[in-house]
Amino acid sequence: MYIVILAGGSGTRFWPLSRKKTPKQLMSVFGGRSMLQRTVERIIPLNPEGILVVTNALQAEETERQLSFVPDDQLTIVKEPLARNTAPAIGLAAAIIASLDPTAVMAVLPADHYIQGEEEFRATLERARLAAADMTLVTLGIRPGSPETGYGYIEADLKAGQEGVFPVSRFIEKPCREKAVELLSAGNNYWNSGMFVWRADVILDRIRTHMPELYTGLESLRIPARLSDHSMARQVEALYAAIPAESIDYGVMEKADGVVVIPSSFGWSDVGSWSALPGLLEGDEHGNVVVDKSRLVPLDSQGCLVLGGGKLVALLGVRDLVVVDTGDALLVCPRDRAQDVKNVVDELAGRGMTDLL
Amino acid sequence: MYIVILAGGSGTRFWPLSRKKTPKQLMSVFGGRSMLQRTVERIIPLNPEGILVVTNALQAEETERQLSFVPDDQLTIVKEPLARNTAPAIGLAAAIIASLDPTAVMAVLPADHYIQGEEEFRATLERARLAAADMTLVTLGIRPGSPETGYGYIEADLKAGQEGVFPVSRFIEKPCREKAVELLSAGNNYWNSGMFVWRADVILDRIRTHMPELYTGLESLRIPARLSDHSMARQVEALYAAIPAESIDYGVMEKADGVVVIPSSFGWSDVGSWSALPGLLEGDEHGNVVVDKSRLVPLDSQGCLVLGGGKLVALLGVRDLVVVDTGDALLVCPRDRAQDVKNVVDELAGRGMTDLL
Repeated sequence: MYIVILAGGSGTRFWPLSRKKTPKQLMSVFGGRSMLQRTVERIIPLNPEGILVVTNALQAEETERQLSFVPDDQLTIVKEPLARNTAPAIGLAAAIIASLDPTAVMAVLPADHYIQGEEEFRATLERARLAAADMTLVTLGIRPGSPETGYGYIEADLKAGQEGVFPVSRFIEKPCREKAVELLSAGNNYWNSGMFVWRADVILDRIRTHMPELYTGLESLRIPARLSDHSMARQVEALYAAIPAESIDYGVMEKADGVVVIPSSFGWSDVGSWSALPGLLEGDEHGNVVVDKSRLVPLDSQGCLVLGGGKLVALLGVRDLVVVDTGDALLVCPRDRAQDVKNVVDELAGRGMTDLL
Repeated sequence: MYIVILAGGSGTRFWPLSRKKTPKQLMSVFGGRSMLQRTVERIIPLNPEGILVVTNALQAEETERQLSFVPDDQLTIVKEPLARNTAPAIGLAAAIIASLDPTAVMAVLPADHYIQGEEEFRATLERARLAAADMTLVTLGIRPGSPETGYGYIEADLKAGQEGVFPVSRFIEKPCREKAVELLSAGNNYWNSGMFVWRADVILDRIRTHMPELYTGLESLRIPARLSDHSMARQVEALYAAIPAESIDYGVMEKADGVVVIPSSFGWSDVGSWSALPGLLEGDEHGNVVVDKSRLVPLDSQGCLVLGGGKLVALLGVRDLVVVDTGDALLVCPRDRAQDVKNVVDELAGRGMTDLL
């Protein structure tokens, strides 16, 4: 099995720690290793045929630096000249893998997700690999622990499947709260994790059917034996200039036949904003979450997330705040407004403060 | 008239900007000049006989540096080895002035108060100087604009006075809200500004009556012509080691005869905590107060006080917060908890984080 890691995040939701050059997947939000490094370390015990990391040209240098622990012959870094959402990135990876072995199975994993229970995660990927050999498009669905409105859902036909692999009835976009409660109680809906497993030739075939423009571009690629070849970079640039941005969910999955879901029980979060971290990191007795406890003085303060970058942070009489300090910028917002941090980034861009983006 | 400036603040209420070595009076909270510098500049048009600044030994160097614009022969810096509240500082200044001219009038001014309306302030001091020549102890009372609970009050006998100078009936400690409303509506109560004017020999005489221990210490001083004389420092050390801390209000004013008040109308605040600044600085259209507007991105945020020390500060969906960032520390608290910042300082002291005090 090949592993394709999507590492092209733009770095707006975790501002000011995330920046264009160091988006979420390259950040060390949990202390120590970055999310990208953890994603790679997590799949190494599977002994993959190869690891392809698709990333933005801006982030390629830091990505290479962080993955220097992976032997060169196992790692391929594919640089996207532009962000074009997931479909072109996945199509490009599939084309590269198909040039080596058309029927190879590939697992597509976002670089910036949180996973707890690594053994179970790897066991699920193994099961998905077997299911993908049957020429299905396998999605990993997460058993929902709560009626989240920030995730898309996958509805499974639980009567039709076997051995934990079920046909997908439909994909459901991020629901309102009421709808999410309904989905949860129905018992056959799963969070769409954005993790997929399929044969390279199968996904390319479905791209041919549902995204013919992208397929034509992929088909015309002359893929060299060594991807670092300059001709490859120019071909990818031409491809990306010619195709629109599209997600693989909307471009292929919601329309294709033969889509199945494996309901999964490992702990998972897409870590969509600062507000997700308090649920994933251990807090103090007042629920304050901080990477370096010795540098926090919390008085009458609860439920705060603090990243102080080493400086002392004193909280006095505040609740449920996100406080993130970097050398050049400071963010203060309530946890329930953290999803709007991108508005701050927009405002900075509007003011021309590009050094802070 | 001599001017005595009390500049021995300990620097806890404006942490993290204020520190032991740079307490409030040495801070530039209003942009530009420090409060001490403004205090001195404000009285220079009065052409005082001399200016005595009483400060803590720890802060003496920075105090001298900030006052280098005052000619040497007009400025005397008196170093206190310990903080002993206002009575010893005032007694020491009075003894020094009396050694030069026993009947000289001295005005006692805190170094860390905000004053708006400098002409009126100086006119009030002139009137106080004339009143002090009659051997009274003159206090400056501020006409209260609101029922503040953070100030002491002075009750005047408005029937007995003349030309704006009235006998004091009593001093009233910081009142509860209900009591403060009552004091305000009575019409003859004024905020105790902590500014006093009297003859040096008169205050020394009252100290003799009400604080005999302090008087004995002051009387035994051998004051040299040049205060920088080493013998003076040793004498002051011995004096301070021997006497208890006491305020001039409690030690003398509340007990003494011949105390008068001049009701004053210039703008005044003791700037007791961070929460006072929004009332004294101009805010933006959302009431956010910030020294450098170009470095603030406030989204859906109102009534915040931000000192970011040059870094960009993004506020998203917060109200009435105090956010103060220095290179090594960050404070976040609601405006109405700002008076408890000293608890943070206590906590830091308890943890032995002396580099942050």
